[in-house]
Amino acid sequence: MFDVITFGEAMIRLSPPNFERLENAVSLDLKIGGSEANVAIALARLKLKTSWYSKLTDNSLGRRIENEIRKWNVDTNHLIWTADSRVGLYFLEFGSKPRPSKVIYDRKNSAISNISKNEIDWNYLGDTKLFHTSGITLALSENCREVVSSILDFCKSKNIITSFDINYRSKLWTIKEARDKLEPILSKIDIIISSENDIDLIFGYKGDFKEKAKKIKNEFKPKVVALTRGPESPLILDETGKILLGTGNRPNLIDRIGASDAFAGGIIYGYLKNDIEKGLQYAEAMSALKFSIPGDFAIINIEEIEEFIKTKKSTIDR
Amino acid sequence: MFDVITFGEAMIRLSPPNFERLENAVSLDLKIGGSEANVAIALARLKLKTSWYSKLTDNSLGRRIENEIRKWNVDTNHLIWTADSRVGLYFLEFGSKPRPSKVIYDRKNSAISNISKNEIDWNYLGDTKLFHTSGITLALSENCREVVSSILDFCKSKNIITSFDINYRSKLWTIKEARDKLEPILSKIDIIISSENDIDLIFGYKGDFKEKAKKIKNEFKPKVVALTRGPESPLILDETGKILLGTGNRPNLIDRIGASDAFAGGIIYGYLKNDIEKGLQYAEAMSALKFSIPGDFAIINIEEIEEFIKTKKSTIDR
Amino acid sequence: MFDVITFGEAMIRLSPPNFERLENAVSLDLKIGGSEANVAIALARLKLKTSWYSKLTDNSLGRRIENEIRKWNVDTNHLIWTADSRVGLYFLEFGSKPRPSKVIYDRKNSAISNISKNEIDWNYLGDTKLFHTSGITLALSENCREVVSSILDFCKSKNIITSFDINYRSKLWTIKEARDKLEPILSKIDIIISSENDIDLIFGYKGDFKEKAKKIKNEFKPKVVALTRGPESPLILDETGKILLGTGNRPNLIDRIGASDAFAGGIIYGYLKNDIEKGLQYAEAMSALKFSIPGDFAIINIEEIEEFIKTKKSTIDR
Amino acid sequence: MFDVITFGEAMIRLSPPNFERLENAVSLDLKIGGSEANVAIALARLKLKTSWYSKLTDNSLGRRIENEIRKWNVDTNHLIWTADSRVGLYFLEFGSKPRPSKVIYDRKNSAISNISKNEIDWNYLGDTKLFHTSGITLALSENCREVVSSILDFCKSKNIITSFDINYRSKLWTIKEARDKLEPILSKIDIIISSENDIDLIFGYKGDFKEKAKKIKNEFKPKVVALTRGPESPLILDETGKILLGTGNRPNLIDRIGASDAFAGGIIYGYLKNDIEKGLQYAEAMSALKFSIPGDFAIINIEEIEEFIKTKKSTIDR
Amino acid sequence: MFDVITFGEAMIRLSPPNFERLENAVSLDLKIGGSEANVAIALARLKLKTSWYSKLTDNSLGRRIENEIRKWNVDTNHLIWTADSRVGLYFLEFGSKPRPSKVIYDRKNSAISNISKNEIDWNYLGDTKLFHTSGITLALSENCREVVSSILDFCKSKNIITSFDINYRSKLWTIKEARDKLEPILSKIDIIISSENDIDLIFGYKGDFKEKAKKIKNEFKPKVVALTRGPESPLILDETGKILLGTGNRPNLIDRIGASDAFAGGIIYGYLKNDIEKGLQYAEAMSALKFSIPGDFAIINIEEIEEFIKTKKSTIDR
Amino acid sequence: MFDVITFGEAMIRLSPPNFERLENAVSLDLKIGGSEANVAIALARLKLKTSWYSKLTDNSLGRRIENEIRKWNVDTNHLIWTADSRVGLYFLEFGSKPRPSKVIYDRKNSAISNISKNEIDWNYLGDTKLFHTSGITLALSENCREVVSSILDFCKSKNIITSFDINYRSKLWTIKEARDKLEPILSKIDIIISSENDIDLIFGYKGDFKEKAKKIKNEFKPKVVALTRGPESPLILDETGKILLGTGNRPNLIDRIGASDAFAGGIIYGYLKNDIEKGLQYAEAMSALKFSIPGDFAIINIEEIEEFIKTKKSTIDR
Repeated sequence: MFDVITFGEAMIRLSPPNFERLENAVSLDLKIGGSEANVAIALARLKLKTSWYSKLTDNSLGRRIENEIRKWNVDTNHLIWTADSRVGLYFLEFGSKPRPSKVIYDRKNSAISNISKNEIDWNYLGDTKLFHTSGITLALSENCREVVSSILDFCKSKNIITSFDINYRSKLWTIKEARDKLEPILSKIDIIISSENDIDLIFGYKGDFKEKAKKIKNEFKPKVVALTRGPESPLILDETGKILLGTGNRPNLIDRIGASDAFAGGIIYGYLKNDIEKGLQYAEAMSALKFSIPGDFAIINIEEIEEFIKTKKSTIDR
Repeated sequence: MFDVITFGEAMIRLSPPNFERLENAVSLDLKIGGSEANVAIALARLKLKTSWYSKLTDNSLGRRIENEIRKWNVDTNHLIWTADSRVGLYFLEFGSKPRPSKVIYDRKNSAISNISKNEIDWNYLGDTKLFHTSGITLALSENCREVVSSILDFCKSKNIITSFDINYRSKLWTIKEARDKLEPILSKIDIIISSENDIDLIFGYKGDFKEKAKKIKNEFKPKVVALTRGPESPLILDETGKILLGTGNRPNLIDRIGASDAFAGGIIYGYLKNDIEKGLQYAEAMSALKFSIPGDFAIINIEEIEEFIKTKKSTIDR
Repeated sequence: MFDVITFGEAMIRLSPPNFERLENAVSLDLKIGGSEANVAIALARLKLKTSWYSKLTDNSLGRRIENEIRKWNVDTNHLIWTADSRVGLYFLEFGSKPRPSKVIYDRKNSAISNISKNEIDWNYLGDTKLFHTSGITLALSENCREVVSSILDFCKSKNIITSFDINYRSKLWTIKEARDKLEPILSKIDIIISSENDIDLIFGYKGDFKEKAKKIKNEFKPKVVALTRGPESPLILDETGKILLGTGNRPNLIDRIGASDAFAGGIIYGYLKNDIEKGLQYAEAMSALKFSIPGDFAIINIEEIEEFIKTKKSTIDR
Repeated sequence: MFDVITFGEAMIRLSPPNFERLENAVSLDLKIGGSEANVAIALARLKLKTSWYSKLTDNSLGRRIENEIRKWNVDTNHLIWTADSRVGLYFLEFGSKPRPSKVIYDRKNSAISNISKNEIDWNYLGDTKLFHTSGITLALSENCREVVSSILDFCKSKNIITSFDINYRSKLWTIKEARDKLEPILSKIDIIISSENDIDLIFGYKGDFKEKAKKIKNEFKPKVVALTRGPESPLILDETGKILLGTGNRPNLIDRIGASDAFAGGIIYGYLKNDIEKGLQYAEAMSALKFSIPGDFAIINIEEIEEFIKTKKSTIDR
Repeated sequence: MFDVITFGEAMIRLSPPNFERLENAVSLDLKIGGSEANVAIALARLKLKTSWYSKLTDNSLGRRIENEIRKWNVDTNHLIWTADSRVGLYFLEFGSKPRPSKVIYDRKNSAISNISKNEIDWNYLGDTKLFHTSGITLALSENCREVVSSILDFCKSKNIITSFDINYRSKLWTIKEARDKLEPILSKIDIIISSENDIDLIFGYKGDFKEKAKKIKNEFKPKVVALTRGPESPLILDETGKILLGTGNRPNLIDRIGASDAFAGGIIYGYLKNDIEKGLQYAEAMSALKFSIPGDFAIINIEEIEEFIKTKKSTIDR
Repeated sequence: MFDVITFGEAMIRLSPPNFERLENAVSLDLKIGGSEANVAIALARLKLKTSWYSKLTDNSLGRRIENEIRKWNVDTNHLIWTADSRVGLYFLEFGSKPRPSKVIYDRKNSAISNISKNEIDWNYLGDTKLFHTSGITLALSENCREVVSSILDFCKSKNIITSFDINYRSKLWTIKEARDKLEPILSKIDIIISSENDIDLIFGYKGDFKEKAKKIKNEFKPKVVALTRGPESPLILDETGKILLGTGNRPNLIDRIGASDAFAGGIIYGYLKNDIEKGLQYAEAMSALKFSIPGDFAIINIEEIEEFIKTKKSTIDR
């Protein structure tokens, strides 16, 4: 039995090295990433048994993605393979202040966007403690939304915990679309994770940070709400209505992509371990450490997390 | 006035360095290529005034393509830009004997595939001596076929010479589709260029190499037919019905992509210079030299072509 | 149940790029390799269920090895981990004719060399159809020899097929040592694989190639003997005493390391599929294709093998 | 008609990657740069029609320079080519605090240093709204000074606006030489641009920043003076005697070379658009954004400039 | 006659580029380093005549080390070569805050750890003004400790100045071992150099920084004590009992490895030049500049040190 | 006392990786090379005590050259340093058949071209058994020719053996100049080394290979003549008038630059060892092995030479 199954798209990520502009690039670093796969890998680093569920085109690009995710100890045996469609890509141009990093998505008509309920392996999905997906999956296509909705109903019927990261992406859908499609989904979720900025944008929230968590809880009735706000302290509103605050962190910036997925991993870990406080500590530690790691994945060890929590001090370990 | 306008798609080309497999790649070399752009650049190296016509998505990937082609002294001022669609890509995995090189096209729904006749700049197209395109453009979409057909009719009406490279790509269409769509087009062409292999596949030709050129001439009534056959000697069947044979070449293999476009460049050059024999010599020289040059483009100087024709001997020039 | 478990050491492989000399290197390409892991990966590419068994030091180098092997769909769940010892390394300096490639082993006192019978997971080992190891494992230490001997006895008791590649390495032991230690082991093996050169060196064989296979059979009573001889045709002597010859191949040389392991994979595949002829074809195809692939691993698809067997012709597939 | 023609030398720029010392470098990144070419490219990014005028040696290094500048949409059709002389180079060793970056010029006897008035294409030079050059060109040779002086007289006679960046380089000439040669030139200029540090060094200015701009205006009678002072706010003294101040910026440091040329581009743009305030905003934005871009060129889009002016906040745009 | 001979191990240093994790590395930068060799090179940059003494395995890895050290003008003619043993390695994973850099030593059973007194070239050792080694050498093996002890006695007998950097490495020995082995050695030393942190750890010192220097002096009777404490000001306690304080520095962090060796070099330089104040200035300057230089070695020029002392201001020198 | 002092220029060598064209290069590999330095290094690999004599500009490029040559165990303590002039460069564009490799020299006005007799250290030059230089040095400047002529006279007076490689470079001087300047020099030489092609070009020789060696001997009266002719067997005409022929070799081509210098090294080695036959064997072996080694230098070990002479067979040594 899996601890966690995550569902979503992973892409080939292509980025010019050394802050070069895409318009001038002569080579691209190739990494793999996608919010839900990132969460699965973060949890595998914490020794949970995780699986990633998705649909991929069966060519060397699709296999490149599977290989990479399997490498990090995430089960990929239940992927849906197709000869049609294409593999999703994203181009990432790293910026340096004051030039922002930029993403060009090239994921339209990718394999997962054509997924249908008939393809879903329900036995497999029934064999997990927790199911996780995010707003990005909803944004991909009507097919994806239908599949997610069905899976969430299935989870409810099987008492599988559901976790969801709102992850709003303005390049995939409008605020209005996001709100319309997210609302029915969020009502089916046990653990809602979001940045403050995303819920402000989508639901028009304003004012006190803690009140926003409570609004989410009132509106959608999840068990747990976890909110981040950049370098400031994140919070968790737990099942008892208690709010826990973290510490906030200002890590160096090597590669921030995937930091919020590492955070989600920590929250899920804490929930599954029945230790929501540890979950918040892990979430913050993994998110901060992720900033130092090239690529989407939080390639971190538990000892490093524990060390971070203890010291937060950078030295050479020799 | 331009000597040559070529029309077709150029793509971002992505290939793993050092014979690495795509399934294992961690970085990709980024080059630009596309048959008709390659021909334009080959001709610009020969000091002809050339322009490349196409439709591109207006983002940093589209501009990356324009930049590169302009860099090689090909006019790009008349490109059609769009905010929609996507930029065509192709992944090239270099093989080494006995492992073949492999191409994965990812060009569906690219900007040019949505081109429409209304977008065409007829004044610009009227301002050239020769117009060139290839079977790849036909294979991209019905829109492309309509536009090509209209342009060829326009060229006839303006006495603009038309040149066409059959360039069959099995990953873009079937043999039957290719035959059905090529036949009406070829009848409008002055200079037909092809590999022997392609016409064998599409038209079922067999037997004597020279007879095949004559069959093409009888069937489609071009002024000139130029045929290649790998390392063996190519031929030209000229306007007078005379057949010229080349010498054949077995160059080292650094990057063979674009060699047939370099060949087409030589043929067009000879035709425009009224020296079909020189055209064949240049075509062979440029094709052979192209094998030694990374990327799709025949970045060659006239002196190198002349030197090749004289000696074919590799030494260090110091 | 696994189709194949292989047992041996995998190392961090470090090689200067671009034929640079080690004495002058400023960077090293890092790959993973080791004969038995290579065989497991070759078989995983053929869709067999394979597992690799070994002992590794639990630091980021040891995990680097595990990650890479798992990436290629080989089970690594039963590895023995230790905090002590060190991770085996080998430095590979690529040569180009007339300069030979050179290997510096730095694997003394590596984790596996300290393995003991008490650490072996016998339940796991009992859960496979075939067990494979090689002479390299024997050469590592007396501990390794004891463990291999015990496992082979265990296999016999469980009717598990045993396969063994002689793989003589002069940098690990002398000819005399090899002969003394190999002889008792080979008597326990069902499938003996070797290069002609190795058996000539170790057993002093001379003369006819086929006769050598028969001598091995007479001496050690395996079911099957498979012999290679560089670019010349290899052979299999099967259970019925029939000898099959291959075709021989002269591939381009990108990276020959692991070609003989790819060959062994083909032989084992054929044996398990009850098609020894196909096994020889696959063995030759995989070995030849391996020459074109950087690194120890035969990252090849079945379709490529089938294509090779049909054509052996290098073209661009586009 | 061109909006701007700039005149000066562009060089091959060679720099060790990753802060490596030149004394220890085994590879060099090759970029192209030169103050006046940088200005032309900055202006081409702002959609002005620009041309770069210079003299180059006709070999692959000279063509490398032309290719690169044409790539960024700057006209290079009027360059003077020579078989003699050599192509200018500069070696750039990136430092990191407290180690300063270092430049070694290797541009003596380069093609432009031998330029003569007879080679100048006056028709071309007459076909622009504005002519720009800098103190670096004056420092190269007596020939260069004569040519610049003649061109400036010609501009006056044709009512072409003249712009000049003082750009003192201590490795090219002494302070005294600079002062002696700059004074007669500056009297012919409409737009004088400089760092505060350069005018302090050359003219011995001291004290209030704004007063220095006025002194320049009094001394040389330009229409406009623009002064920078590192991260502090720059200023413009406009035709009416009004002084505008900017905001100052402290960007991250990826590559500061060319930032002052990007600044000059902004000032010229504002002047030509009759909006000196926008000119200062653009100048500051382009200069700050340039710090984040590898190489001499300000590869920036207008939208990025507008975005910078609005927010100055670094986020991922996805 | 040499000014300085240093004795210790230098290793092949392997580090993933671009902050990549070792667990995910596909290439490693290869540098050479080792505390005592680093000191020798720092002193050679200051134009002293230096020699590095050690024992190396005679293969291309050992020669790689010798080549590199000789390259930086340190004599290597007296190295002890052996066919046995192995070359020491260390893997360095660069971190970025909050992830610490990590070192994995792989130097057990390296050539120097087997050194014996019989191999020592006493004539050579007698031909120097100063002998330097460090606590790392002591930590390597009992053999190393015996050899160091003998050499120090020899130095005393020949009036050769002895210098010693405590350099505690927790991955090589425990605090208790270090204390037990260091105490008899430190009593033989003229110049004791250490970080405050190391002496706190080993000798349990607490409280005032200056008092710690005096305690060292009282305890072991060296002529000079030099102590560092990270970015804070270091100190020297000189032969007359006077304490000099430095300024402290917070350099950017490119590669901090070797900074303390550069510091030691400065102290030794000052001592040999009879200018302990200059020694402290040089020590701080070299240490700070070292932070900006990739690799263990302080590849710095005297002019840069002088410039640093004057200004500490980062600008482009062009 | 040195065995050999060589005199000439070494340059920074810059070449685009992976067969890229200079016109399209974005990075350059940096190596060091120069015929006479190459010979010195070849001889140092053979354990002779060698020194390289030259004049260099004292900046980081000049020191880069010194560092590299010292690294390979060649004495550089007697170099003449200057603050003026510049460091010689050459750009090397690797070709692949049929595209030839190309060299662009950028060495005019380099430090050595301004050398004068007053700067020569005669004591140092008197302390060697053999002095070697080449026609390249003569081609650099009149100053160089005067210095070489004086040194050769000095050698004669001191009974120092003189060796000279004709090394004609058409990019440095014309055939006529070469002939006029070489003739008086060759009369002062003990060992004349050349390719057949060079003496054919310069002296108009034709016909039998052996006769050409004899003509050289008759004309200039050296003790020994050694001639190469590409992959064909070279020859030596020794002091007794006996002609020895080699075997000829067709190595793979990684980097042929410096192969003739490696050959010269072998010849000199044989002469100094009084074994002209071994000299020819070594010369051929080193030249052939050099083809496999990136860069100008013959980084080869004696064991590899001996192995080559025995087998010429490429295998992996593991």
